[in-house]
Amino acid sequence: MSVEIKLIKTPKLKRPHLVCGLPGSGYVGKLAVDHLIKELKAELFAEVYSYYFPPHILIKPDGSIDLIKNELYFWTDTNNSLDLIIYTGDSQPASSEGDYELADRILSLVRSLGADTVFTFGAYITGSFTLHPKVYVTATNAELLKTLQGYDVIITNEGTITGMNGLILGLAKLRGMKGLCFLGETSGYIIDARASKRILEVFTKLLKLDIDLTALEERAREMEAIIHSFEERQYKPQERIDDKSRLGYIS
Amino acid sequence: MSVEIKLIKTPKLKRPHLVCGLPGSGYVGKLAVDHLIKELKAELFAEVYSYYFPPHILIKPDGSIDLIKNELYFWTDTNNSLDLIIYTGDSQPASSEGDYELADRILSLVRSLGADTVFTFGAYITGSFTLHPKVYVTATNAELLKTLQGYDVIITNEGTITGMNGLILGLAKLRGMKGLCFLGETSGYIIDARASKRILEVFTKLLKLDIDLTALEERAREMEAIIHSFEERQYKPQERIDDKSRLGYIS
Amino acid sequence: MSVEIKLIKTPKLKRPHLVCGLPGSGYVGKLAVDHLIKELKAELFAEVYSYYFPPHILIKPDGSIDLIKNELYFWTDTNNSLDLIIYTGDSQPASSEGDYELADRILSLVRSLGADTVFTFGAYITGSFTLHPKVYVTATNAELLKTLQGYDVIITNEGTITGMNGLILGLAKLRGMKGLCFLGETSGYIIDARASKRILEVFTKLLKLDIDLTALEERAREMEAIIHSFEERQYKPQERIDDKSRLGYIS
Amino acid sequence: MSVEIKLIKTPKLKRPHLVCGLPGSGYVGKLAVDHLIKELKAELFAEVYSYYFPPHILIKPDGSIDLIKNELYFWTDTNNSLDLIIYTGDSQPASSEGDYELADRILSLVRSLGADTVFTFGAYITGSFTLHPKVYVTATNAELLKTLQGYDVIITNEGTITGMNGLILGLAKLRGMKGLCFLGETSGYIIDARASKRILEVFTKLLKLDIDLTALEERAREMEAIIHSFEERQYKPQERIDDKSRLGYIS
Repeated sequence: MSVEIKLIKTPKLKRPHLVCGLPGSGYVGKLAVDHLIKELKAELFAEVYSYYFPPHILIKPDGSIDLIKNELYFWTDTNNSLDLIIYTGDSQPASSEGDYELADRILSLVRSLGADTVFTFGAYITGSFTLHPKVYVTATNAELLKTLQGYDVIITNEGTITGMNGLILGLAKLRGMKGLCFLGETSGYIIDARASKRILEVFTKLLKLDIDLTALEERAREMEAIIHSFEERQYKPQERIDDKSRLGYIS
Repeated sequence: MSVEIKLIKTPKLKRPHLVCGLPGSGYVGKLAVDHLIKELKAELFAEVYSYYFPPHILIKPDGSIDLIKNELYFWTDTNNSLDLIIYTGDSQPASSEGDYELADRILSLVRSLGADTVFTFGAYITGSFTLHPKVYVTATNAELLKTLQGYDVIITNEGTITGMNGLILGLAKLRGMKGLCFLGETSGYIIDARASKRILEVFTKLLKLDIDLTALEERAREMEAIIHSFEERQYKPQERIDDKSRLGYIS
Repeated sequence: MSVEIKLIKTPKLKRPHLVCGLPGSGYVGKLAVDHLIKELKAELFAEVYSYYFPPHILIKPDGSIDLIKNELYFWTDTNNSLDLIIYTGDSQPASSEGDYELADRILSLVRSLGADTVFTFGAYITGSFTLHPKVYVTATNAELLKTLQGYDVIITNEGTITGMNGLILGLAKLRGMKGLCFLGETSGYIIDARASKRILEVFTKLLKLDIDLTALEERAREMEAIIHSFEERQYKPQERIDDKSRLGYIS
Repeated sequence: MSVEIKLIKTPKLKRPHLVCGLPGSGYVGKLAVDHLIKELKAELFAEVYSYYFPPHILIKPDGSIDLIKNELYFWTDTNNSLDLIIYTGDSQPASSEGDYELADRILSLVRSLGADTVFTFGAYITGSFTLHPKVYVTATNAELLKTLQGYDVIITNEGTITGMNGLILGLAKLRGMKGLCFLGETSGYIIDARASKRILEVFTKLLKLDIDLTALEERAREMEAIIHSFEERQYKPQERIDDKSRLGYIS
């Protein structure tokens, strides 16, 4: 067993879109996807285990444990115009081969369920804080990016996306699937719900999904309050003195 | 051969419990399990070799060598009300995949011998010394934790357990087996027989095992004497104050 | 899929030579091979994917992405006296086993297309800058080196070549194929088009290829201009003396 | 191909002994075994390649290259009372699994040639220089060590031997073969021919081999001369001052 997918049920879906957000920098992708699952009340239909995951068990609030795993959810629009498969989990694999094999297995499964479009969410790390993070996009082909004209996004045109949230898009392209990757701008230093919210603003508009983003906004504000109070306490009074010593002032 | 289990004999057991304690932080789990094996005079029935172990041989006091291995012992209660399979060894595997594969192979074997309950022993690292280490517990399901009501244990409700002693519990749960993990509080800096003793106090009470823990108590006191003398010699003036707070002595 | 070769077409070739230049120190081998592909208008006939590559996707200038891959091109001389298979790519594998398996797969393929000679291009790192980099050569057998008599090359007689550009030559020898490795002298600190150009000067002379090297010369000069301006700005007083010795300028 | 053994010929041997010395600390084992091969004029009969070796090629003095490999030699006593298989090579594998798989493959081969005894040579690292290095021994069983009574050796009774030179002995024991490991005392800082010579003094006496060790003695003296001259040049004048300051002297 290098990858084992435990199917809880096999959902009947009509050309569903795959949406991926595994843990990565700032948990940007995972927070966005977790929010989707919660707000849409998406249904768990498969658990994914792999020898390539770190050999960890996670302790839950009730004192029981679970092996590290990934999960697949599905959601069907009430008027049946849109089906989603949502992919997230506790961890990415611990090795390159593990990433490739897992991504390939997930794509095989969703393909067998009719999916031909992939959306992946990740982080665009800048190293500095902003209250107005941008959303960067890239796609399996340049043509697809035109569907985002008029949206508040920036098309990236250089660089590398590392890890599962990029790899799934790359392997999907190899299989003839199409897809978009949304990268939320983030400092890289914090769990960044604001970047996640920004991705979902674009994504829900594109897919005409009606989802309340208040919870993400609140989580982002909490984090910003923590940072703010931290800055107040830690750097305020000392800062002027430090400044002098650093610049060689003698007062 | 990624994992090879050399069966010395196939014991006949009635729904035995698996007890695991592989080397880890403070050797907490291994010391406890080694003590069980010795006091119960448990019988070795299998040796386990793996390409995933470090490529080491160990030199024994008589000058001969042995390849690094794991071992499985069994013990049957004289009035036949309790059977145990005890699992320990020289080392954990050197890679994540090695952990997963070995844990799966061990579980397959003990399952074939009728086991459906797993106890694993490990360390709960705090970074500070105490003479009264606590025992933390977690389980495959919250219901099981109720069997420990009235015991001197703390139910954990967050965090991660890493390595084989956790993984075996996680994989056991996936196979529909049930189990408990006992984590002895330890500084993480020493081989900690006191933490091992505390685990066995709970474990033997739970399983109504009559086992003498004197040897572990002695080993713990030797280590504490070493630490004490070290502090006396090295940190003269500060030592008395530190001693109290760190080791909990009252002079 | 540890290595997957996607054949776009199967070229008909007459005992083609394989020419390899994968990314390595100074991009010496890759720049040389990329230049060959461009100037010869060689035709892509296979894409190579591997679980051993880093799990990365690359963003292209048009905003679309591609999975990391290697590529095989072919070129046939107009008067049909020389056929080339040219091998390059975005990355080398991320592990030793990955290197071995990929190199073996590439050699099997080119062998099936009739190749029995291999040329590999790489870097000879010295740690210091020069405007007149030498070309070092080594071969599958000493006899072959005699074909380079009268050429401006140095025969190496000790040391180790690491990574794919060496490994392919070593595995080719094991299969009874013959080959030469050209190593362009480079500092190891910069992308070094001059070292690439020097390799191609020898290689094109040996194979009687008529190729314009102006683009490489220009790229080398741009890099030298950057280094020069950097030295001017940063190291004002020392720079003129250093410049002469390090870059071999005579003012 | 994770391990490939290329048989050049299949020697006819009568219960040969395997002698192993792969590169390790101080090249102690390898130098000893290389010396045996040269003095006995042992004959190469197999080359060993593995995906687990580092992906390197080695440049030879004549300018040609070879892939990193291991080698097996055999030697038959003129009066046919002793057969040896000698195992050495350019490198050990780069991973634990590689060590295990290679050692297992070598043992399978030599077993099929009739071997049931294994001698391995390695280093016993002390961190300090000595002109009279000791030889430490360990064995597959304590009984075997009695054959060394009266020899100038020390029986080890604790510790770990890491890497191929130990692993082969451990895996041999698992197969029911017997063997001895000789560890030459060495600082660990230099290529140590004196430690190698000391091992061969014991080994050749034990097997009644008549081998000239002059070349190893010379190589050891050259190294000692280099160290001596280095000490003269580098540490002489400062040494007295340093000494004082280190011991807190005030002159």
